[in-house]
Amino acid sequence: MTHVKAYAAVSATSGLKPSTIERREPGAHDVEIAIEFCGLCHSDVHTIRSEWGPAKYPLVPGHEIVGIVSSVGDSVEGFTVGQRVGVGCMVDSCRECDSCLEGFEQYCEAGNVGTYGVADPRNGGGITQGGYAQAIVVDENYVVHIPEGMDPAAAAPLLCAGVTTYSPLSYLDVQEGDTVGVIGLGGLGHMGVKIAKALGATVTVFTTSPAKAAAAKDLGADFVVVSSDPEQMAAAKQSLNAILDTVAAVHDINPYLRTLARDGALIQLGLPSEKMPPVDPGLLIRKRLAYGGSLIGGIAETQEMLDFCAEHGIASDIEIVSAQDLDAAYDRMVVGDVKYRFVLDVSTL
Amino acid sequence: MTHVKAYAAVSATSGLKPSTIERREPGAHDVEIAIEFCGLCHSDVHTIRSEWGPAKYPLVPGHEIVGIVSSVGDSVEGFTVGQRVGVGCMVDSCRECDSCLEGFEQYCEAGNVGTYGVADPRNGGGITQGGYAQAIVVDENYVVHIPEGMDPAAAAPLLCAGVTTYSPLSYLDVQEGDTVGVIGLGGLGHMGVKIAKALGATVTVFTTSPAKAAAAKDLGADFVVVSSDPEQMAAAKQSLNAILDTVAAVHDINPYLRTLARDGALIQLGLPSEKMPPVDPGLLIRKRLAYGGSLIGGIAETQEMLDFCAEHGIASDIEIVSAQDLDAAYDRMVVGDVKYRFVLDVSTL
Repeated sequence: MTHVKAYAAVSATSGLKPSTIERREPGAHDVEIAIEFCGLCHSDVHTIRSEWGPAKYPLVPGHEIVGIVSSVGDSVEGFTVGQRVGVGCMVDSCRECDSCLEGFEQYCEAGNVGTYGVADPRNGGGITQGGYAQAIVVDENYVVHIPEGMDPAAAAPLLCAGVTTYSPLSYLDVQEGDTVGVIGLGGLGHMGVKIAKALGATVTVFTTSPAKAAAAKDLGADFVVVSSDPEQMAAAKQSLNAILDTVAAVHDINPYLRTLARDGALIQLGLPSEKMPPVDPGLLIRKRLAYGGSLIGGIAETQEMLDFCAEHGIASDIEIVSAQDLDAAYDRMVVGDVKYRFVLDVSTL
Repeated sequence: MTHVKAYAAVSATSGLKPSTIERREPGAHDVEIAIEFCGLCHSDVHTIRSEWGPAKYPLVPGHEIVGIVSSVGDSVEGFTVGQRVGVGCMVDSCRECDSCLEGFEQYCEAGNVGTYGVADPRNGGGITQGGYAQAIVVDENYVVHIPEGMDPAAAAPLLCAGVTTYSPLSYLDVQEGDTVGVIGLGGLGHMGVKIAKALGATVTVFTTSPAKAAAAKDLGADFVVVSSDPEQMAAAKQSLNAILDTVAAVHDINPYLRTLARDGALIQLGLPSEKMPPVDPGLLIRKRLAYGGSLIGGIAETQEMLDFCAEHGIASDIEIVSAQDLDAAYDRMVVGDVKYRFVLDVSTL
């Protein structure tokens, strides 16, 4: 057992405090990682504040982890000491169900083992602790390589925000000539714009805030539609093949369904805590539309996404924060005051 | 202009009365059909009772039409006098939009021209009149061949109920080894069961009525789940690849979404007139599910479906009614007292 510095919440209202946690000695298949950077995801805020149900405290959040391999178990084949690697939202899964065997570990029928806050049955059943820490030990099957030359801090958010938007675009086979809408321009949304553009799509950003138009264009968006403007929404009617809905607050998706062309799909990525307004099935029927959802991405897909991003020279737009500023950064995330992802510099722990 | 006998509604409360309507002389591309049989679709009831908005009276319903070609225009290439043919829910469309050019006339961007009750711009703008009539004149592009040996009365419902269930199963590429659920066991549902079975799927029928279990098995269903029984619904959890939802009344689809396996789709075919309960996006996200819709089928697809049904020896289970009994048949349809489709014997007009 190794003790490492971390930042942990001890209650729903404590905020994040300096702490020390234990990491297991690397087993035969484990990779020990000296963490350099960890992205701050909205899920971290929801979880440590017990907004998604009671969290198990003390809890170290963080599932957008980039670092350097410091040690590997005897049976590890894919990683060597000194390599830069990443860990995303999962550190294990059952490895036996169809979803696991097909590389969709995120949909593991037994439930994947999240990077923080859940029981880790294969490692004694303790509660997993995330990446706001100096080190982490993870089975090599749940570790990915950060491509050469990629900025490690800007790569961190790809492990969650990147793959969450890449996976549905890949599943829908979005390609050159397709038209993609992105609702919301936060951590997920800004990656959705970049990845859809890199896939060759024409991208429309929907935002409630006209002030974000210029920023959306800077990210590569071809069109910006202010969703509160009925005229702009009407002009976008039946134009899109796919929409990534990154908004986790309650909202009416029916106006967006009207902007889909025949056979289009609106994929919800954010999960509101309250009920959404009813979907009009007539909209689905009259254009053969689909309203779907998608959850992060598989491990192989995460590697594929990283390689894709490296090839296309894209990463997350980030603001680096020190450990001492985590609580303030959370408050700014809640009001959307970040372009577009905070990343913790773990050396400040 | 030819005058033919028909049964028409003259108001929302008139019921169907003997009437005489005009049919145009066949133009160069037209097929004139002496109607033998016409299926009774729930849409007929909704429309003539003005339940889907005010209808244009007098109105002859009917869009599951089978008959014999009695005359063809000079330029008709696909049909000759004496052939048995069918007409479904559309008699025209713009023929220029992407949907029309790709053979999805039902999704015509200008709106398809329904077989009854709508303006027919290419033929003087009059209101189309349906198949409860001795004859109809239709452009050959919207006419299909009834395969040799198929019972003409039992074929009639295939033109709407058949293709409405075939089209989504085909779009979802349902095949041998897949698992398909069918919600509701009426005109659409019973065809859904037969076609899904013929495609090689294992079929589960969801019904609120335990009394329908034996009938569902008779149609070929492998399993029957009484949807009001939480234990039976729980036992069906995550087992299905696709669900055809044929219920047009308001109902909660969330319990059915739980019976879908990863990447499964629930396709709504019936359109409730009131708002549906909200869909839980968490269910969509956690299994990458899709909630979709589908509208009848294209003309080429309708022919494909008829040939498929002939090849597999399937047709609709019907009860033949006389014109004098149409009102009584409508009342029985409304309470679901038919196995599974009424078909009007047009010789009784």
